[in-house]
Amino acid sequence: MQASASEKNPKSGGGTSKITPRATDYSKWYLDIVHEAQLADHSAVRGCMVIRPNGYSIWEKMQKELDDRFKKTGHRNAYFPVFIPVSFLSKEAEHVEGFAKECAVVTHHRLRATADGKGVEVDPSAKLEEPLIVRPTSETIIWSAYKNWIQSYRDLPILINQWANVVRWEMRTRLFLRTAEFLWQEGHTAHATEQEAIEETQQMLEVYRDFAENVMAMPVLRGAKSPGERFAGALDTLSIEAMMQDRKGLQAGTSHYLGQNFAKAFDVKFLNAKGQQEFVYASSWGVSTRLIGGLIMTHSDDLGLVLPPKLAHTQVVIVPIYKTDEEKVKVGEECQKIQKELSEKGITTHWDQRDGMTPGAKYFDWEVKGVPIRIEVGPRDVDSGKLVIVRRFVLEQPGEDEKAIRAKKKQILSRQEALAGIPALLELMQKELFQRALDFRNKNSRVINSIEEYESFFKKEGGGFAWVHWAGTHEDEEAIAKKYQTSIRNIPFDGQGPQGSEGPGTCIFTGKPSTRRVVMSEAY
Amino acid sequence: MQASASEKNPKSGGGTSKITPRATDYSKWYLDIVHEAQLADHSAVRGCMVIRPNGYSIWEKMQKELDDRFKKTGHRNAYFPVFIPVSFLSKEAEHVEGFAKECAVVTHHRLRATADGKGVEVDPSAKLEEPLIVRPTSETIIWSAYKNWIQSYRDLPILINQWANVVRWEMRTRLFLRTAEFLWQEGHTAHATEQEAIEETQQMLEVYRDFAENVMAMPVLRGAKSPGERFAGALDTLSIEAMMQDRKGLQAGTSHYLGQNFAKAFDVKFLNAKGQQEFVYASSWGVSTRLIGGLIMTHSDDLGLVLPPKLAHTQVVIVPIYKTDEEKVKVGEECQKIQKELSEKGITTHWDQRDGMTPGAKYFDWEVKGVPIRIEVGPRDVDSGKLVIVRRFVLEQPGEDEKAIRAKKKQILSRQEALAGIPALLELMQKELFQRALDFRNKNSRVINSIEEYESFFKKEGGGFAWVHWAGTHEDEEAIAKKYQTSIRNIPFDGQGPQGSEGPGTCIFTGKPSTRRVVMSEAY
Repeated sequence: MQASASEKNPKSGGGTSKITPRATDYSKWYLDIVHEAQLADHSAVRGCMVIRPNGYSIWEKMQKELDDRFKKTGHRNAYFPVFIPVSFLSKEAEHVEGFAKECAVVTHHRLRATADGKGVEVDPSAKLEEPLIVRPTSETIIWSAYKNWIQSYRDLPILINQWANVVRWEMRTRLFLRTAEFLWQEGHTAHATEQEAIEETQQMLEVYRDFAENVMAMPVLRGAKSPGERFAGALDTLSIEAMMQDRKGLQAGTSHYLGQNFAKAFDVKFLNAKGQQEFVYASSWGVSTRLIGGLIMTHSDDLGLVLPPKLAHTQVVIVPIYKTDEEKVKVGEECQKIQKELSEKGITTHWDQRDGMTPGAKYFDWEVKGVPIRIEVGPRDVDSGKLVIVRRFVLEQPGEDEKAIRAKKKQILSRQEALAGIPALLELMQKELFQRALDFRNKNSRVINSIEEYESFFKKEGGGFAWVHWAGTHEDEEAIAKKYQTSIRNIPFDGQGPQGSEGPGTCIFTGKPSTRRVVMSEAY
Repeated sequence: MQASASEKNPKSGGGTSKITPRATDYSKWYLDIVHEAQLADHSAVRGCMVIRPNGYSIWEKMQKELDDRFKKTGHRNAYFPVFIPVSFLSKEAEHVEGFAKECAVVTHHRLRATADGKGVEVDPSAKLEEPLIVRPTSETIIWSAYKNWIQSYRDLPILINQWANVVRWEMRTRLFLRTAEFLWQEGHTAHATEQEAIEETQQMLEVYRDFAENVMAMPVLRGAKSPGERFAGALDTLSIEAMMQDRKGLQAGTSHYLGQNFAKAFDVKFLNAKGQQEFVYASSWGVSTRLIGGLIMTHSDDLGLVLPPKLAHTQVVIVPIYKTDEEKVKVGEECQKIQKELSEKGITTHWDQRDGMTPGAKYFDWEVKGVPIRIEVGPRDVDSGKLVIVRRFVLEQPGEDEKAIRAKKKQILSRQEALAGIPALLELMQKELFQRALDFRNKNSRVINSIEEYESFFKKEGGGFAWVHWAGTHEDEEAIAKKYQTSIRNIPFDGQGPQGSEGPGTCIFTGKPSTRRVVMSEAY
């Protein structure tokens, strides 16, 4: 049996890793992954990130999967202006509270040369009559356009989505998770009835769940946000909430039922089938590049990024092993053939032809970058008609040491068997990632019935998702947030909780009766 | 033979058209097309447009075709901040001249409630230390990032593209053609040698030509811009130039060789293979939503939008004709079958099931929106196993009247023959559009050897593309622009001109010797 290069090369397996272990510092680990896998950088503009090709390719795959789902449910894409007149924000009373605070304000439309001629400065004579803000979300500008498109019920529904950049001036930023500028999609729909708008809100939450679980391999809890956590201007906000590896929650997507609030703010009425004028009903829903942060914190490990095969830019990397020029040619031919055969199966591949880099260094590099499968091809493999297949991760058993885990990742198979098995292996890995994350969430979810238990869970036992009865006020929520750094993630729909989580009970904080449990946790 | 509904219904064929004929007012015609085909609207923000789903779907198809070509030539997508610090603009001397004038300037990061509590206003205490501009183009912010990514020749080339919104504060705007905010792609590449950067510049121009001609069916002239028309900061700007139906030119895409200008401005050096420090060589290239304006003005007619099949959201619309409920069911079944059969061939279809609208009104609607092929299905068609196929346009012969043209558009074929022939018909229509536009350009291009001829061409004969020798200065260009409203489109590469356009000659304006001809025209 051939010794693999990964055992021969001390660089492989994290020998020169610049990645802080999760156990040492989870926040540092996260940023190390983002940098070492070349996903994103801080930019010269405070709070704004540069999304590098490795990071952007994840976003492109997310976009494709989501966009297909939006179109299948009847939506079309459009594009609305990046600027919103300041006066628009005042039109919806709650919306202005939520979004008129920290934003980028455009006040001038020209620069001029400085007096010394060496630089440029704002030209005071080019002040705008009305300042504009860079959109933090687009309800107002979109409803000002919908007003012109809607006269009668025949013009409804309007089912539109926009892919765009948005800006919310954040003080404390973290790459992907919270940045001043981020990329997202925002759906904005207009309906003739309340019922239809509510069904749309629910449908899109289900689209997000399907995407999160089946593409990102990230289990989520569907539910309604508490009134205090609703979107500014919404009657109801639904969300999907995921658990990260540090047991904190992450809001991964929201879908809002807006009632007639924006229609009233922008005077958008329609003639209904009975010939009466009525305000239009609305929904809006969005997910953002924040999901990339969630993806990292759901699956990655101390070796680097782990990507579900469905979101991997390269699903299989082929690394040639050779010493002589003759071996290089021989191995190269085989690599090319493998690449062709896998491409024909619809698998994305990369043949790493970099010279002056050891195979071990290449293994290390692709592990950090999260490529799901590596194929090692040496001259003896070509002679014997075998291939070394190495998985990026395996499900680990308690007590397994590093050597045993490394052995489990590797298989030496006949060429034919190896290549024929790749599609199934990718599917298996996709499922295993989901199952591993689900097991983790289940393990760290607890039905809690008293404030003492709650305190112990979060202060002593590391926390997670606490399923508790809650009947407190918004002020009570703030009090508990201050004391435990926890918040209500959402009020989950039926059938998602651990045993004993269904049915009515008593609020752990106020002792008041409660009809159903909420999920509380620390959160990003 | 069944009389088609288009003959029975006076609404069809432009009876109720809101579209100004081209001969009456070309500018008005253009805006009518944009509005009636629901491509875009003016927004509440001065100079910014709303791209409606019909318009955005053209952009999406353009994006897909271009993105595939970019990736095939080794590029990857990334995303850089929307904001650029004002000081960055001063770093490249020419760039600041070109782009620091009319732009959106962000000076504050917060709003506050007005004293009366009813509105919001800029919070003076939230003034930024350094103002930011909304990107008009991204060379500066991108090269500030590249500085961190490039150390040695091993890090090169960097081949990156960005899909983004950009803002250039324009005084006189026109939907798609010139708007304050527009969507585009901008490629930004970094190379170890001048030669490689120049080859990249040329390669991307060829990608644009291929896209313009084979996807948009819009013939273009490839060439270099005159020095006065170069991109601010470029050593050489290549362009593709198209001729619109009013014989004006439209710059449809540019590719710039930037030399080491931006590398010097942002101090981006690399260690070359000889171990020496050297500044990096650069290219940048872009096309924008302006192309949608070019597409409209290349192909559309007095009935409405005409789309090349490759950019049509719906390639075939199926319109049922019925009077009774029984007929509706019978015809509906056939429509559904047709839709299924065409979808299986990869053709995008729409079955127009709107109630309360005559077939003729539907024909009219889809003609305005540019759907390439219409299939009419009536009860007698179902009985006889025939289908009525109507093309959106045909090539017209001189002297043909409207009735003859309408007859040429329509074919009554056996069901099988009709459906089997649709893919070939779409291909034919794609080619015919290109050929029609090319014939038009050829007819309106002229080799001109004196200023008198030039004056006659533009002042008396309607103008077009004038192939002239030119050896004037930038001031001479401005003088001729003032007098004739014409400018140098580009200096075409060999082999694209009419007979007699090659070889050296004498500048029509200065009488100085000239090595090759330029193309001059009025332009958008």
